[in-house]
Amino acid sequence: MTKINLIGLDADDTLWHNERYYAETQTKFADLLSHYQPEEWVRKQLLQTETRNIEHFGYGIKAFALSMIETAVELTDGRISGQDVRTLIEMARGMINAEVELLEHVGETIPRLAASHTLALITKGDLLDQEKKVLRSGLGKYFTSVEIVSQKNAGIYARMLARLSVAPENFLMVGNSLRSDILPVLELGGKAVYIPHEITWEHEAADLPASGTRVFFHLDDFGKLPELVQELERD
Amino acid sequence: MTKINLIGLDADDTLWHNERYYAETQTKFADLLSHYQPEEWVRKQLLQTETRNIEHFGYGIKAFALSMIETAVELTDGRISGQDVRTLIEMARGMINAEVELLEHVGETIPRLAASHTLALITKGDLLDQEKKVLRSGLGKYFTSVEIVSQKNAGIYARMLARLSVAPENFLMVGNSLRSDILPVLELGGKAVYIPHEITWEHEAADLPASGTRVFFHLDDFGKLPELVQELERD
Repeated sequence: MTKINLIGLDADDTLWHNERYYAETQTKFADLLSHYQPEEWVRKQLLQTETRNIEHFGYGIKAFALSMIETAVELTDGRISGQDVRTLIEMARGMINAEVELLEHVGETIPRLAASHTLALITKGDLLDQEKKVLRSGLGKYFTSVEIVSQKNAGIYARMLARLSVAPENFLMVGNSLRSDILPVLELGGKAVYIPHEITWEHEAADLPASGTRVFFHLDDFGKLPELVQELERD
Repeated sequence: MTKINLIGLDADDTLWHNERYYAETQTKFADLLSHYQPEEWVRKQLLQTETRNIEHFGYGIKAFALSMIETAVELTDGRISGQDVRTLIEMARGMINAEVELLEHVGETIPRLAASHTLALITKGDLLDQEKKVLRSGLGKYFTSVEIVSQKNAGIYARMLARLSVAPENFLMVGNSLRSDILPVLELGGKAVYIPHEITWEHEAADLPASGTRVFFHLDDFGKLPELVQELERD
């Protein structure tokens, strides 16, 4: 029998839409620069700037906004207009103030899980943005702890589990990113449920681990999570 | 006798220089825009933009960078050049990668405090920036917990103390901001030591509480902190 003492849930694109807003903004961004450069090239350059800036600016909307502005200056040889720069900042403010839209089955599944298990929300990104989203989602009360971290690697998970006094084998992490939610938890000896999202940021892509073990599970529907947890604890 | 079970320490401009880098960047920013607007006006407008943006972008260097860019576009009626925008982003990257320079007496005082008391570092700002600064400062090992919060108000302190199982009357907070480090802690029934810094961001200014009580202390030297704590516990 496996006892699950803590279920960790990723937030963006696991509980609520997130990449969608980035994708929409990227499309607007490519449109804005379409006088200067072809759309595909704009997208490619933006991803390069974002990846290069992660070590300086980290994750989240503000980092994305700075990367958009920097890419725009580069791709226009400095000819981007002040008005267009203002538009980019407006886009970022729009993203920050966007509604929180829960993914399918999340709204009814989280209270069910919380009735039987301790839940922690574990997310990376800007502190203020993520706190606002937790608040707006209405789900905050179901989580015993909300962990906003600058990155998700085995060391970060290990420290968090130590602080919460949970052994890795009694921890189940649920998320849409193999790189951030699944692989580091399996590395630690924890269990993980991968629920892919229709859009995944390229930076988060990784190879799928071998399935069929009792530590890694692949679900296509968030609503099936309570049954999976039940089965897992019955085994 | 008063028992201090936890000493909270603010980081920026309490343990290490911070406002200095903002002040230097502001001067460069005013220089950059000096063709368009007088320096005083540039500084005033930047502060206004920053204050207006706090609710959207929060605190930290990325928020500051976006506010500089936005102010530059406004004050030049959109005529700011792409090259100048690039310079602003470079300034932000420079701030993020700046050395961590400890304030006077901090380097020897923190180990002394840590030998007798549990220390928590309590700071607001960008998660990644603050984590980097803790790492670079070499002081990380003296803190039992590092709390990076989106804002510092009585509710945030209360939740943190509850989580750490510390009663407010056994908590002593040390910092340079009346608004963030002192007033909310006194409001809760905690104790606070105000160590002013030569430069304080205008947004953090507040009126000085009445001194002479046994809950509020005003020090001009970080090095006097261990003696103050000793006296406090002796009373």
